[in-house]
Amino acid sequence: MKKEILIIGGGPAGIITATTAKKTYPEKTVAIVRKEKTGLVPCGIPYIFGTLNSVDANIMGVKPAENLGVEFIVDEVTEVNLGKKSVFLKSGEYIEYEKLIFATGSRPVLPPIEGKELEGVFTIAKNKEYMESVFSYAKDAKKIIIVGGGFIGIEVGDEIRKLGKEVTIIEAMPHLLPAAFDEEFGKIAEEKLIEHGVTVKTNTRVAKVLGSEKVNGIELQDGSTLEADMVIFAIGYRPNTELVKGLDIHLGYSGAIWVDEYMRTSVKDVFAVGDCAEHKDFFTRKPSKLMLASTAVFDARVAGANLYTLKVVRENHGNLGVFSTSIEGLTLGAAGMTLRTACQEGFECVVGEAKGIDRHPGTLPDKSKLYVKLVFSKESGLLLGAQIAGGKSVGEMINIVGLGLQKGVTANDLVTMQIGTHPLLTSAPTTYPLILAAESAIMKLR
Amino acid sequence: MKKEILIIGGGPAGIITATTAKKTYPEKTVAIVRKEKTGLVPCGIPYIFGTLNSVDANIMGVKPAENLGVEFIVDEVTEVNLGKKSVFLKSGEYIEYEKLIFATGSRPVLPPIEGKELEGVFTIAKNKEYMESVFSYAKDAKKIIIVGGGFIGIEVGDEIRKLGKEVTIIEAMPHLLPAAFDEEFGKIAEEKLIEHGVTVKTNTRVAKVLGSEKVNGIELQDGSTLEADMVIFAIGYRPNTELVKGLDIHLGYSGAIWVDEYMRTSVKDVFAVGDCAEHKDFFTRKPSKLMLASTAVFDARVAGANLYTLKVVRENHGNLGVFSTSIEGLTLGAAGMTLRTACQEGFECVVGEAKGIDRHPGTLPDKSKLYVKLVFSKESGLLLGAQIAGGKSVGEMINIVGLGLQKGVTANDLVTMQIGTHPLLTSAPTTYPLILAAESAIMKLR
Repeated sequence: MKKEILIIGGGPAGIITATTAKKTYPEKTVAIVRKEKTGLVPCGIPYIFGTLNSVDANIMGVKPAENLGVEFIVDEVTEVNLGKKSVFLKSGEYIEYEKLIFATGSRPVLPPIEGKELEGVFTIAKNKEYMESVFSYAKDAKKIIIVGGGFIGIEVGDEIRKLGKEVTIIEAMPHLLPAAFDEEFGKIAEEKLIEHGVTVKTNTRVAKVLGSEKVNGIELQDGSTLEADMVIFAIGYRPNTELVKGLDIHLGYSGAIWVDEYMRTSVKDVFAVGDCAEHKDFFTRKPSKLMLASTAVFDARVAGANLYTLKVVRENHGNLGVFSTSIEGLTLGAAGMTLRTACQEGFECVVGEAKGIDRHPGTLPDKSKLYVKLVFSKESGLLLGAQIAGGKSVGEMINIVGLGLQKGVTANDLVTMQIGTHPLLTSAPTTYPLILAAESAIMKLR
Repeated sequence: MKKEILIIGGGPAGIITATTAKKTYPEKTVAIVRKEKTGLVPCGIPYIFGTLNSVDANIMGVKPAENLGVEFIVDEVTEVNLGKKSVFLKSGEYIEYEKLIFATGSRPVLPPIEGKELEGVFTIAKNKEYMESVFSYAKDAKKIIIVGGGFIGIEVGDEIRKLGKEVTIIEAMPHLLPAAFDEEFGKIAEEKLIEHGVTVKTNTRVAKVLGSEKVNGIELQDGSTLEADMVIFAIGYRPNTELVKGLDIHLGYSGAIWVDEYMRTSVKDVFAVGDCAEHKDFFTRKPSKLMLASTAVFDARVAGANLYTLKVVRENHGNLGVFSTSIEGLTLGAAGMTLRTACQEGFECVVGEAKGIDRHPGTLPDKSKLYVKLVFSKESGLLLGAQIAGGKSVGEMINIVGLGLQKGVTANDLVTMQIGTHPLLTSAPTTYPLILAAESAIMKLR
């Protein structure tokens, strides 16, 4: 058979490439081949343990895509023939394409250490059956160690402790969330987790997993041991490029599929989007290891619109990390570079900071403290990054600075930003912390 | 005595002019003359009735300004002498200045109709003593009519019904919130108020207030009558330019003090900020009647930085309305022009719309529906306005589009906006309604 636009992989990148393609080229047939009938909402995975208390509650709907005419083929691509512009499926089926898109995602990393294959050792994979096994194992476990204090590690950790388990999070770096946040924000997350009864060990590395058949603990690099009947590795993901092996498709030096600004690979009519594609950092244009559903769908909206015709207004000049996480009562948001990263990359920086509350007057109920840190380039005054701690409003506040980064805002732009404020929803206009933080940076620049 | 920088009026515009001046010119003496020792948080005023249940809980703090060295003089300016660069105070005091800033605010409008002077007829003034009398009268009233279905009218109406009063809101236009929203959003507000037991009458005008000494009802223009033992007019505010009368300071044709892009009046060394200054509309540059604390502090941050030296990066090219309001469980946000206004101003428009929810997956608790409407210029694709209905996250979402309007974003910019999303805080990246609404506009443009 023939599908004019064929997408391998049905995660957010694959689905949004398909819907964008169908919206841009409605006359074309668009199909997604994916292994599983049912996909998970990737960012929802940590919440299956406590908040949702079910894997089935975290299913990604395909109705909107199907309604647009996107076809889902539950099967597995076993071989791609670039010359014949076709793929073979496990079922024996053979599909020809005009445009092929790799949206094969990523796989969790398991470190090459002793004991990693023991029963009770898991990762967080974006796979329904696998996550059902993790959830079921967690229910019967008592002491659970999470290795990795990034977003997935702390979210899974905090959710599992809601099941009444004894949870320890182990992070190799000096503080939690080291990729997206500076130390003071990592400490805020750590305090909240400790308050919830989670044990946090930073500056700590795992040497091996202990046990004979089943895991019974871990040994740290300092030789000490910790008991555990379940160990979950949440130390990152690696691009899934299995299918590309042996094909004449260029991989970038990060190991992911090289793409240009329209998400085109080195082979004509072949594209790559999401975690399997090599991203460029928004600021430095260096290869970046950023893997987010939100950047994956950005890739997808660029690729889907440019499959047959180029739209110069839809290019990917670099992927910007905009993050948020929520640990009951605490929201942390980050966009762009941390101060540490910006300095490492060679920027001369000025920091602006402000504290406030997210309601006004402060006598209102339901309020949270806000803490904003902005990093600016000293020379140009351009915003390079933002970190915010506060209540739930931080989830969208971080998108204000995210858009600001994409539109090149300066400290002065932020100080003279015209905002909407409301007593029950935001800080006061007089003390809006994004504005006060930018102002504090300007005062340092004088 | 002499105060180098002298500000008349201690609301948000006055205070932020003072703090910005002190931050920009720390060696200068900065003083605010204001009539009342204690000022109210203007946007918090509606919430004194129900949520705060106290006028005292809605006080605007002056500590941050005092800590910077801003002096508060509780007195009243009775005369300004522009030639001698000095003012006389009611107390007999005389102050010379180098720079004078009018931040005298606005006063509620009472329509020139019969019965407006009866006992039990009130406005919503930004004055502590007056609001104490309104609150106290409301406590003893049973049937309360609010005339005016703008932000203040519906917020005061919904708060007063929390006191167990029978509340009727009367709006002359075909729907509530007619200045900031199109009809469909006005209807959403109306439904929520009706659900709360508030009576809403749109397309309805008041002819006179009835009663002999005390109010006992109103007569409508169709001749019918409504019973009431309290009537509150919330039909708008007028710039307070009392002090300027007789001075050779130019007033704009809206009746407010004319200012240039640095908030300078027609007289050297004299500035005006906030509600007493004539604003220009952000899009059309026509005189605008926008009166918001958030735009007042924008004026203040421009004026305060430009008192002695011009900073070309801090100009007021036009005031942008960014609004939000909250009626328990419903948040409405608006930025820029409505479709109606844009069409009236002569723009050819394309509308993009999307519906969604503010959590993902949709099985999560604590979720609200989101409805986004974006108005774009057909020719340029530039965003002209946004309206959003949803939960509390709308309070900051509207600031994303607010910044977008200020930075000139197009529909394509929004579709390729890189965002941060989180299950417990936002929509999914695949269905983020600002992106889907922009995409729906692009599809119409094809």
